[in-house]
Amino acid sequence: MQLLENAILERGRVKDGDVLKVDAFLNHQMDVSLINELGKEFFRRFGDRGVTKILTIEASGIGIACITAQHFGVPVVFAKKTQSRNIDGEVLTSQVTSFTHQRNYDIIVSARFLSPDDRVLLIDDFLAKGSAMLGLISLVRQSGATIVGAGICIEKGFDVGGKAIRDLGIDVQSLAVIKEMRDGHIVFDHDTAAD
Amino acid sequence: MQLLENAILERGRVKDGDVLKVDAFLNHQMDVSLINELGKEFFRRFGDRGVTKILTIEASGIGIACITAQHFGVPVVFAKKTQSRNIDGEVLTSQVTSFTHQRNYDIIVSARFLSPDDRVLLIDDFLAKGSAMLGLISLVRQSGATIVGAGICIEKGFDVGGKAIRDLGIDVQSLAVIKEMRDGHIVFDHDTAAD
Repeated sequence: MQLLENAILERGRVKDGDVLKVDAFLNHQMDVSLINELGKEFFRRFGDRGVTKILTIEASGIGIACITAQHFGVPVVFAKKTQSRNIDGEVLTSQVTSFTHQRNYDIIVSARFLSPDDRVLLIDDFLAKGSAMLGLISLVRQSGATIVGAGICIEKGFDVGGKAIRDLGIDVQSLAVIKEMRDGHIVFDHDTAAD
Repeated sequence: MQLLENAILERGRVKDGDVLKVDAFLNHQMDVSLINELGKEFFRRFGDRGVTKILTIEASGIGIACITAQHFGVPVVFAKKTQSRNIDGEVLTSQVTSFTHQRNYDIIVSARFLSPDDRVLLIDDFLAKGSAMLGLISLVRQSGATIVGAGICIEKGFDVGGKAIRDLGIDVQSLAVIKEMRDGHIVFDHDTAAD
């Protein structure tokens, strides 16, 4: 998606170790009008699949999921990282590895908010190793709901997550796919980011 | 605000210890069309104050802030709880006490995203003891930006936070103020929740 690629080139920053910082517009400061265009694009790609709920994970997925959900007219559910003892009743849980923070943590969602009738669209800001997305997929499968696809803003195409999730038969649509980052220069992959 | 009070009465649940659960529509599962009405109402109350940025705190404030920000046409910045080593450059920091999780933690925001020219509206889902809101106020004051007010979805009017923040001279507008919760029965305070 040209608009997102332009934002990455103009407002993103490449740091050592294949780290792309998009905190100026996507996951710390949030440009809600740009994000609304991303939401429209997710709707263009997934709008005909009978989505009943959008599932994301705290924290940076929440704003993107909420704005996207306005186009679908469905609620958002966000999985919480564990210190939230603040959930009562039955919960679904799975484990996620954060490579950024170098630790494992559990994610949980109240079982009341995912039912076998639900058709769930997964939304997140980044897909790299895919651990968070695999955790969300596990939560949905435990609930008996159907996954209709995964909408990702930025996929690191050179990392393992995209293939891992697609190998599960899930339709992953990434609005920008990065093929490589070298010496601060970003190359996009337009084949994986199919429109 | 009648719409929010109705949602609290119909879809909220009162638990032991003055705990009000609104996870069915506000802070775990999120009813984005209801939240859009809250955003409109925040705009009605604060729309003439030259807001340039909305500041909130992860995680449950983010979706509300993003949807509200669409009405103001300004970006959202969310303060992160500390394990985020993922912020580089100069940061503003302050300490918050979580009574729910019974611990202290630091919140941080990149100094790049709050400047002395900014006019900041604070947004959060709940105001009870006010610790998170006091932390946000400290971040804004460190940056030299101006606080134009605080928009809260649900204030526990019987707790200390509302008075503490108002005593700082900040205009706190809460869309629903709870006067008391007894035996599962909720009484709203329509005097504090001034329109």
